Amino acid sequence: MREEYRADLASVGQTLVAMAEGVRSAMRRATEALLAADQTGAEEVVYGDAEINAYRSQVEDKVYDLLARQAPVASDLRQVVTAIHVAADLERMGDLADHVAKTCLRRLPNSAVPDELVPVVRDMARVADRISGKIAEILQSTDAKRAAELERDDDEMDELNKQLFGLLLGTAWRHGVEAAIDGALLARWYERFADHAVNAGEQIVYLVTGEAPAQTA
Amino acid sequence: MREEYRADLASVGQTLVAMAEGVRSAMRRATEALLAADQTGAEEVVYGDAEINAYRSQVEDKVYDLLARQAPVASDLRQVVTAIHVAADLERMGDLADHVAKTCLRRLPNSAVPDELVPVVRDMARVADRISGKIAEILQSTDAKRAAELERDDDEMDELNKQLFGLLLGTAWRHGVEAAIDGALLARWYERFADHAVNAGEQIVYLVTGEAPAQTA
Repeated sequence: MREEYRADLASVGQTLVAMAEGVRSAMRRATEALLAADQTGAEEVVYGDAEINAYRSQVEDKVYDLLARQAPVASDLRQVVTAIHVAADLERMGDLADHVAKTCLRRLPNSAVPDELVPVVRDMARVADRISGKIAEILQSTDAKRAAELERDDDEMDELNKQLFGLLLGTAWRHGVEAAIDGALLARWYERFADHAVNAGEQIVYLVTGEAPAQTA
Repeated sequence: MREEYRADLASVGQTLVAMAEGVRSAMRRATEALLAADQTGAEEVVYGDAEINAYRSQVEDKVYDLLARQAPVASDLRQVVTAIHVAADLERMGDLADHVAKTCLRRLPNSAVPDELVPVVRDMARVADRISGKIAEILQSTDAKRAAELERDDDEMDELNKQLFGLLLGTAWRHGVEAAIDGALLARWYERFADHAVNAGEQIVYLVTGEAPAQTA
């Protein structure tokens, strides 16, 4: 029974890894499309979101199956249900990649990102990519220390967010209100992507170790 | 056993009702504070968010307890776990009320909402209030028809959102970039509040009836 439980839990974890990698790839491709004003690339991300949502159903089905067959109690039960939370965070991260792609599409044939915002958007995307990469890693390595790093990555994202707002609100801004709103919303999508990733990371530590995540200093 | 299961499920539902009412009240008070540039009111919403988060833990504890004691399977199991999703949506709605309150606080002693945006923000808040009121009702009355109304309420919110963006991007806008970003983000908080409410409403139908929600035309 214990053996079977472990195997079932590992199978849930594998689906989450695939989902985390899908979400990471979606945000990476959304950013590329955004910065290149690439319609085809952006559309692929939008169409691909259904696949990410399907992963979430798959995770939930596996969890229900596990619960029904193994009827875990106490901490085992909480551990299993955690997978549902992780899948919800990952799905939302997929939605945010979709939002980035749609911002790209809305401004075509122009770019939604004025030149002076490109470096900071690129940096936000880089942090988003790093964070989502760690999630897949934590799922596979069960290394709780990596989860503690996520908070620092998230601080970096907050810093970039401030930097971007500094540009939008600075006296040198000459792209008007619409581009500023696009910029603010894009910053929001990357920031939320990171928030959900951190949240997922903390839940994953619990999922794979059964222990609450280490608090960062 | 069946009797006990029903009673446990009803108890989960009662906590969700209290949570839904808390969230509704939070958004209502956040809007009042926002439109009156009222520091005390806004701070109360921010402090009160912890209480909403505590409700979520309470729902989850009850669900875990129910799962452990009753070990429901198949559709019963899915029904119970649905409560976890509803609580997650409601918690997020509380966060969005908190965001509205913080936008208010950030611009004090000024108002974050220029005069010409006041009517549309007030309308968005009214729709948000109506939607969240229905959630508590559906939980109590198990009336699936009310859930179908939520989609229409959500359409109204989307319409208001467009109206607000029309003002921000119109030639008459004379409040600059910062106020426009505030306006766009506020619209986003109300819109997301409605999205989560619709989502919660659909899940609640499943929770209280065990049936998938009716599709709206």
